[in-house]
Amino acid sequence: MTCIEVPAREGRAVGLRAGQTVTIVDVDGGQVADTWAYVDGAPREYASAEHTRVAVGKLFPDRGEDFVTNRRRPVLRLEADTSPGLHDLLIAACNAERYVQLGVEGWHASCEDNLRQAMGAYGVGDVVVPSPINLFMNTPFLPDGNVQWLPAQTAAGDAVVLRALLDCVVAVSACPQDVTGINRRPGPLRLEVGD
Amino acid sequence: MTCIEVPAREGRAVGLRAGQTVTIVDVDGGQVADTWAYVDGAPREYASAEHTRVAVGKLFPDRGEDFVTNRRRPVLRLEADTSPGLHDLLIAACNAERYVQLGVEGWHASCEDNLRQAMGAYGVGDVVVPSPINLFMNTPFLPDGNVQWLPAQTAAGDAVVLRALLDCVVAVSACPQDVTGINRRPGPLRLEVGD
Repeated sequence: MTCIEVPAREGRAVGLRAGQTVTIVDVDGGQVADTWAYVDGAPREYASAEHTRVAVGKLFPDRGEDFVTNRRRPVLRLEADTSPGLHDLLIAACNAERYVQLGVEGWHASCEDNLRQAMGAYGVGDVVVPSPINLFMNTPFLPDGNVQWLPAQTAAGDAVVLRALLDCVVAVSACPQDVTGINRRPGPLRLEVGD
Repeated sequence: MTCIEVPAREGRAVGLRAGQTVTIVDVDGGQVADTWAYVDGAPREYASAEHTRVAVGKLFPDRGEDFVTNRRRPVLRLEADTSPGLHDLLIAACNAERYVQLGVEGWHASCEDNLRQAMGAYGVGDVVVPSPINLFMNTPFLPDGNVQWLPAQTAAGDAVVLRALLDCVVAVSACPQDVTGINRRPGPLRLEVGD
């Protein structure tokens, strides 16, 4: 089994053949995993939040349901989930500009930079940055439409299993957000690739 | 005043200088207007649904609030709205694949094709297709997270006024969706540019 450690505040990408799974493990708990998938060899086709909402008719897929691409093709199945099941498909990845607006001075790691770096290391440059699949992220929208920024409720070892339905590259960022409190503290993730 | 007619099932793009407004008029009522904005000369920066939700802390801006770009810069202000105020920022634009899945045989117009055609006519090719601002679209998400596909509630002449905060290109598609019932019938729109 291929096992990839994602250090705190960093990102990694892994290639999956259709049928393989990737288990995304929150090693210490309380950590958000910003996740993207691009079709192998065609990175302008990617897992799309707005197309997935149409495909499943709701804000986030249930277990056994699929994330689809911007070409409406199922690309990842939410196969298993040992976490409390709180995830987000509505919020942009943090980027450099977000931390400037939050008052951070100087450089700060971000999920968008982590994505670009991880995909670059995988050999894919100049990626489009889709709206991420924010695993373990606890940012519910209230019935009045307002968002809450709450800490991730995951325990150490909680995990989500995604099964590839197309050959694809999955990129995961251990979200370095340490201003808004959505992470207990920025910690590591682990990616386990299985057949 | 520049006035651009958007025929039923088609799209048009218009350039705005910062400070100008575009009024998007639902001419006959009951018509969805898929809307995008790209920064003039830098079309990889665009009005972003997922970044706007972070900026306003809710699912759709209120009057007086701004849509922001993927670089977190305010690009369009929701300045006025004479419609019932039902809009969507969650649902992907219809595309060719959507109509195949809905059982349509042969070619069908789509908002994504309309966007590409309108931006191409404006001189911008190969655009990224962000999640659209679906003006007048009545597709609420219920508290259980499920989406409803309901007809637009606009009356003839209802309009939204957007003020450009950056030099930008605004593209609008008169949504040709005639399968799911979100449009009373595919009708025209009108774009009025003001200072």
